[in-house]
Amino acid sequence: MNSKSEPGSRARMVEAAITLMRGSGLSGAGINEIVRVSGAPKGSVYHFFPQGKLQITTEALAVYSTRVVAFIDQALASENQPGARVSALFSAFARRVEQGDFHQSCAVGTVSLDLDGDLQALQDVLGRTFSEWTALIAAHFDLGDSDRTRSFASLVLTAIEGAYVRARAERSARPFMEAGEWLAMLADQQARAAGQSPE
Amino acid sequence: MNSKSEPGSRARMVEAAITLMRGSGLSGAGINEIVRVSGAPKGSVYHFFPQGKLQITTEALAVYSTRVVAFIDQALASENQPGARVSALFSAFARRVEQGDFHQSCAVGTVSLDLDGDLQALQDVLGRTFSEWTALIAAHFDLGDSDRTRSFASLVLTAIEGAYVRARAERSARPFMEAGEWLAMLADQQARAAGQSPE
Repeated sequence: MNSKSEPGSRARMVEAAITLMRGSGLSGAGINEIVRVSGAPKGSVYHFFPQGKLQITTEALAVYSTRVVAFIDQALASENQPGARVSALFSAFARRVEQGDFHQSCAVGTVSLDLDGDLQALQDVLGRTFSEWTALIAAHFDLGDSDRTRSFASLVLTAIEGAYVRARAERSARPFMEAGEWLAMLADQQARAAGQSPE
Repeated sequence: MNSKSEPGSRARMVEAAITLMRGSGLSGAGINEIVRVSGAPKGSVYHFFPQGKLQITTEALAVYSTRVVAFIDQALASENQPGARVSALFSAFARRVEQGDFHQSCAVGTVSLDLDGDLQALQDVLGRTFSEWTALIAAHFDLGDSDRTRSFASLVLTAIEGAYVRARAERSARPFMEAGEWLAMLADQQARAAGQSPE
């Protein structure tokens, strides 16, 4: 413990952890890096986060997820038709990676690919976050039956995570736009089929 | 330079780099780790790879890519119909992640999410590898026009990379199976449409 922790240090450390994890996952978000990027006094890390890196990264992932939920929700709610919703979502992510100059990926994705077998607690957080995002996406679609809708939402999330990987390597938002076009077509088609032959 | 490098050390170092990168990208594949996992004498790293980590990871990615190319090719060639080909591909990847107990992801994906701005040479390798894989997948399909076929192949690759991310977090091959089902349906449908109204 120490008392030299100025107000705002805690929040700045969480922000730094988010930025660093989006950059290169767990490996990039070491305590020293978090301290350096946040500008917070080093001693204050263990004051605010007595359990160290696991605690700060878990909290940072929760804060990050809340923002992603709002981001996805807003993009999907901006349109009424299933296909247009999918397009709006992938376009929003395309702009997001462009704005980050292709250096900032999805923190849940980067950490997933850094996972060590001994970080069971963190893995649970990641798995749960992906489930929550899938449920959120599914809530914006009605493709006739709930299993089918959830499975489509899961495909959308898989494509977003994959496009994040490729956008980084290719320095291009094209993987988002391509996936968005195909999945928009699929969404409209499925919704039409569900409307034509409701069960 | 030193001469204590036994035969096979070089190949074992490349194998170790592949395994470590599949585990956690560039950050996991430090020279010390490569030496430890390969069992090679430490001095021999710079004997075989004078440019150090960049050289060994670049070569390891090339070897890895050759294997992935063979893997994708074999899976896609095992079936004749477009949808069945897609299913075979995703099933093959699902088995692959299960066999690796969800710890081994795609090395190109993990390294992509670890990329630093200063590793331009490595980024070019990653981008080129994804392009080659896309072209390879595209060569197994004919959806009527080459742009459309390439775009579909790109979607398939995006879904594979995304499923790798999610499989790791969720310890499940389900993201591969779900994406495979949807994209198989899409492939059959597109091939049918192309056959019905050829240009």
